[in-house]
Amino acid sequence: MKKSDLALNELEIEQFLSDVFPQLYADGEQQFFVENVEPYSARIRLKYHDRHLRPGGTFSGPSIMSLGDVTVWIMVLAHIGRVANSVTTSLNVNFLMKPDQVDLIAEGKLMKLGRRLAVGEVTIFSDGLASPVAHITATYSVPPK
Amino acid sequence: MKKSDLALNELEIEQFLSDVFPQLYADGEQQFFVENVEPYSARIRLKYHDRHLRPGGTFSGPSIMSLGDVTVWIMVLAHIGRVANSVTTSLNVNFLMKPDQVDLIAEGKLMKLGRRLAVGEVTIFSDGLASPVAHITATYSVPPK
Amino acid sequence: MKKSDLALNELEIEQFLSDVFPQLYADGEQQFFVENVEPYSARIRLKYHDRHLRPGGTFSGPSIMSLGDVTVWIMVLAHIGRVANSVTTSLNVNFLMKPDQVDLIAEGKLMKLGRRLAVGEVTIFSDGLASPVAHITATYSVPPK
Amino acid sequence: MKKSDLALNELEIEQFLSDVFPQLYADGEQQFFVENVEPYSARIRLKYHDRHLRPGGTFSGPSIMSLGDVTVWIMVLAHIGRVANSVTTSLNVNFLMKPDQVDLIAEGKLMKLGRRLAVGEVTIFSDGLASPVAHITATYSVPPK
Repeated sequence: MKKSDLALNELEIEQFLSDVFPQLYADGEQQFFVENVEPYSARIRLKYHDRHLRPGGTFSGPSIMSLGDVTVWIMVLAHIGRVANSVTTSLNVNFLMKPDQVDLIAEGKLMKLGRRLAVGEVTIFSDGLASPVAHITATYSVPPK
Repeated sequence: MKKSDLALNELEIEQFLSDVFPQLYADGEQQFFVENVEPYSARIRLKYHDRHLRPGGTFSGPSIMSLGDVTVWIMVLAHIGRVANSVTTSLNVNFLMKPDQVDLIAEGKLMKLGRRLAVGEVTIFSDGLASPVAHITATYSVPPK
Repeated sequence: MKKSDLALNELEIEQFLSDVFPQLYADGEQQFFVENVEPYSARIRLKYHDRHLRPGGTFSGPSIMSLGDVTVWIMVLAHIGRVANSVTTSLNVNFLMKPDQVDLIAEGKLMKLGRRLAVGEVTIFSDGLASPVAHITATYSVPPK
Repeated sequence: MKKSDLALNELEIEQFLSDVFPQLYADGEQQFFVENVEPYSARIRLKYHDRHLRPGGTFSGPSIMSLGDVTVWIMVLAHIGRVANSVTTSLNVNFLMKPDQVDLIAEGKLMKLGRRLAVGEVTIFSDGLASPVAHITATYSVPPK
C-alpha cells in the first residue's frame, strides 16, 4: 500500500476534523495539526496552549489522552474515509514523564484494521525530546460498510 | 474507618479543586460536584454542558475520561489530604454506550491505597439510568509523606 | 431477566469448559468451579494448586489474568449459549496485593452485552478476605448470530 | 548506554529465569528464549508447544499475556540486575489476530525506568510474519535500592 492509496490526505483530514469536532479548536484557533499520514502510521502535533495546562504548567492528562485518541481516529479515517460515527470502545494510557512547555508530537501506528475493530498505538513526545511523555493504545469500532 | 476519619470532606475537596484546577471550570462555572465521599468510595457529578459535546450531542470521550480520572483523584485526596502532586500513572477506559444529554454520575471505589500507588475504579452513568456509560480504572502515584 | 432465563446454568458451563478447554485442567484435575451464575454476574473459584505458584508461593500473574478472562467468558456464555469462538479482544488488569495461599474467588459483572462486543469487570479476592487481590476488565468479540 | 553496560546478558537472564520461575518450564523443557537484550529493548522467543493450545490449535490468551509480562520483566532485569521481587502492577493487552502454529516472537521496548516504576511495551508476532498477534503494555514496581 502506498501513501497515494489512502482515502484522505493530511489537508482533507484537517478539514474533516474542523467540520465534525469544532470543540477541538480552542477559541477558534487550530490546535491539532496533521503533519504526516502514511499507510498504517501518522504524526500529529498538538500546539502548546494555556488551555491544556494543569498545576505546574504542563499539558493535562485529558489533553494527552485526547491527542492519543484523535491520532488513532485519524489513522482510521485516512484508510476508510469520512466516517464520523467510528467510536472509541476502549483506551489505555501510561503517563511516563511530565511534558515540557512545548508542542506535543504523537507518533501513531495502526496495528489492526479489521472489519469490526481497529487498534492503534501512539507514543507521545515533547517536541524535540527523545524520551516519551505517554503511550496510548485505543480501539475503535468500525461501522459496517 | 468512618466518614469523619477522612482527611477532607466534600466542600473542602471542591474548594481544593477550584484552587488547583481552575481549568476544570468552564468559563468560570463549576462543572464537577462532589456529591458524596465515604471511606474508599465517592460519587461525583459532571454537569451537562455544551463544552463537552462531540458530534451527536453527547459528552466527548475525553470528558468521560476526565471525570473518571478526577473521581479517583478525589478519593485519594479524601484519604491523604491536600496533595496536589499526586499524579496519574495509568488509566484504562471502556466506553459502553452513548451517554444521554443529562448530567453524568461517577460512582468510584478506591481499591488500593498503598504507600506508593493508589488504584481506583469508576463506573459512569447518565443521571437516572441503570446501564453504565463507561468504566474506568486509574492508578495514581502517591507522594512519599 | 431471571436466572432461569439464562442460556446455560452452572453445571452446563463447567461441562462446556471441560470439553473446549481441557488445558484448564491441571493434570486432569478440575481447577475452575462455577459457583454461581446470575443475569449479568458470576462467581468463579480457582482452586489453590502448586501449578500456579510463583516465587513466594502465591498465584502467578498469568493465573490471575486467566481467572479474570474465564470469568468474563463464562458470563457471556451464560447469556448467549455454547459459542466457542467468542474471543477476547482486550484485557486490562491491576494487581492490588499478593494473594494468600488459599483459593481465589472471582466476582464478575457483565457491564455490556452488545451485538458485537461484550465487556465485563472482575474483582478477585483471596477466599475469605475483604481486600481485593486484582481487578480485571475484559472485552469479548461476540460472533454474529 | 551500550549493551556492555547492562547488568545482565542473555545467558545470565535465562539462568536467573530458570532459578526463580521453574514453572515457566513445561515438563522441564525450556520455553522462553532470550534472543537479544539491548539497552531499553529485548527480543524473546516462546517455543510452540501443545501446552499453550486453546481450541483451534493456537497459543492461548494467557500464554500471550505471560510472554508480554516476562518480556518487560526481562528488560527491567537487564538494567537493574537480579531482583526477584519486582512485581507487575498493571498490564494491558490487545489481541490483534489469531497466532499461527509457530513460535511467538516478542519485540519489547522499555519506555520508562524510574525509581519506583518501569513501563514497557511489547509487540508479539508469529515467527516470520509481519502483522502483529498482540500488543501489551506492562508496569512493574521497582524495589527501592
